[in-house]
Amino acid sequence: MASNVNETNDFTLTKPIRCIVKLGGAAITCKNELEKINEENLEIVSSQLRKTMISSDKVVSLDWSKRPGNSDISCNVDSFGDQLNFDANKFIVVHGAGSFGHFQASKSGVHKGGMDQPLVKAGFVATRISVTTLNLEIVRALAREGIPSIGMSPFSCGWSTSGRNIASADLPAVAKAIESGFIPVLHGDAVFDDIQGCTILSGDVIIRHLAEHLKPEYVVFLTDVFGVYDRPPSEPDAVLLKEIAVSEDGSWSVIKPTLQDMNKQVEITVAAHDTTGGMDTKISEAAMIAKLGIDVYIVKAATSHSLRALSGEVRGNVPDDWLGTVIRRLSR
Amino acid sequence: MASNVNETNDFTLTKPIRCIVKLGGAAITCKNELEKINEENLEIVSSQLRKTMISSDKVVSLDWSKRPGNSDISCNVDSFGDQLNFDANKFIVVHGAGSFGHFQASKSGVHKGGMDQPLVKAGFVATRISVTTLNLEIVRALAREGIPSIGMSPFSCGWSTSGRNIASADLPAVAKAIESGFIPVLHGDAVFDDIQGCTILSGDVIIRHLAEHLKPEYVVFLTDVFGVYDRPPSEPDAVLLKEIAVSEDGSWSVIKPTLQDMNKQVEITVAAHDTTGGMDTKISEAAMIAKLGIDVYIVKAATSHSLRALSGEVRGNVPDDWLGTVIRRLSR
Repeated sequence: MASNVNETNDFTLTKPIRCIVKLGGAAITCKNELEKINEENLEIVSSQLRKTMISSDKVVSLDWSKRPGNSDISCNVDSFGDQLNFDANKFIVVHGAGSFGHFQASKSGVHKGGMDQPLVKAGFVATRISVTTLNLEIVRALAREGIPSIGMSPFSCGWSTSGRNIASADLPAVAKAIESGFIPVLHGDAVFDDIQGCTILSGDVIIRHLAEHLKPEYVVFLTDVFGVYDRPPSEPDAVLLKEIAVSEDGSWSVIKPTLQDMNKQVEITVAAHDTTGGMDTKISEAAMIAKLGIDVYIVKAATSHSLRALSGEVRGNVPDDWLGTVIRRLSR
Repeated sequence: MASNVNETNDFTLTKPIRCIVKLGGAAITCKNELEKINEENLEIVSSQLRKTMISSDKVVSLDWSKRPGNSDISCNVDSFGDQLNFDANKFIVVHGAGSFGHFQASKSGVHKGGMDQPLVKAGFVATRISVTTLNLEIVRALAREGIPSIGMSPFSCGWSTSGRNIASADLPAVAKAIESGFIPVLHGDAVFDDIQGCTILSGDVIIRHLAEHLKPEYVVFLTDVFGVYDRPPSEPDAVLLKEIAVSEDGSWSVIKPTLQDMNKQVEITVAAHDTTGGMDTKISEAAMIAKLGIDVYIVKAATSHSLRALSGEVRGNVPDDWLGTVIRRLSR
């Protein structure tokens, strides 16, 4: 899939990347209200990320900008003595769009391409404004927790596609940011496409590409449900699939719970307004990551379960009291 | 200066770039109030840019995002019929930081480098948050005027320095955006430096580099005074230098007004809080651009004079009633 990717791979990582985290659009925004951040969730998610990234308990904000409604800048220069250690474990954060960007993209059809049409070109501009607004807010929320977060918008960072597959990506820039001690924050974005002119590059596809090339120890998808279910989680009999195994050829099967407990056919639902695919894309992207030997955890954001997944506690044997879905390579 | 620049130059422009415009920090922000945009000026500047870039008189906003205090999104899909033409002349916009970023940069000393110091690393994060906040607001202001603006943050777009000179820059990405009909919007930014770890790359240096490689027809600096004066413009006897000629070796001399009318020595003032240099940097960067045979106009933003400069009306013989400074190569 990524065979013709046109990129230099001249980067070195002195230490492997610990984790790539997806902040699902549904988890950090109010999906049914246009351009509204789920502030409460974002704050908890940011705090959990700090706990798993940074050893020091001291929280010193790195966001020295005004906040809406405040006329003051809070900047605590005295806190940054040499003893302050905010060296972070190597993480990469990628977020979805949720109620940002989707509206603009679907109104204009940016994902279908056709940049010669005024509406598509307008939608490209409007979509990028919306998703970069969200990116900035997430970078700020992380920085307020003391995480040295750096926004790296895929369009700007040289990401492009060809027939909606990734054609280029400036991975050395991501590696350089990590090596310098920063936490890159990428996101689903409108990008150029060699064939159809433009498209929407989803956060899930970005994660798969980063995982393939940067080989993190594990990947966590934070979402708004406890994991992957055998049918829409809103249905009363929906069963949480706790472990999915992916075989060599990319096909996947449910290991836990065992088959006799449930329907054989796992239904997948994709919300109609979601231009980049919902659970369907997520599972197939996750399966491709797992195939590389990298465990993937799909877990509800801002819960004790997400904290355990982020910290790496559930690697190896998954505890019975942990709610979430593990997707891993079928052990031979 | 740019001899060791590590970049691929495989880009083509079907039509030359008409103009690179610098929106000076002092012109678009309230320089004495932290992180405050000069909304009135920015609106006039955006409107003048639209008039000089786009032939159509119809203004259709490309900013479909919520504005603070508004709960609605304004999106006028019906306006984007095939007859709508917002094809723009090829412009590049670069803006300064003004009251954004400078505070964070100078508090932490990001421009002096030393990323191993917690304060510098923190300041790098804080500076980028501040300048990208401003960038987003400028992209939105331009988009509201119907300009297909695309934020391209230098840090993300592969710009880095070596001993504060430019070491790399993804110019093909800028060219690709222009070729696709967009108006790239770059800005002064915190970037990596090969030697000192990090620094502040000023908008003026970015413009010089873009001009050198992309060869625009002319360059306009929009600022908060009428142009370059022989002494601080606040002084009562300050004389506006209307024409400056740059010779082969980069030295420059005042052509108009003639020398007998004024002091021989032109004083240059640099504000102490300005981490990237003030008029001094501006003139030397402008002189380097002019040396390439590209006329540079320094003019007060949001005036009839700036509109005339942007439209190219004052190229060739400078009208007597035009207030501003032209810097051009000494004709042999």
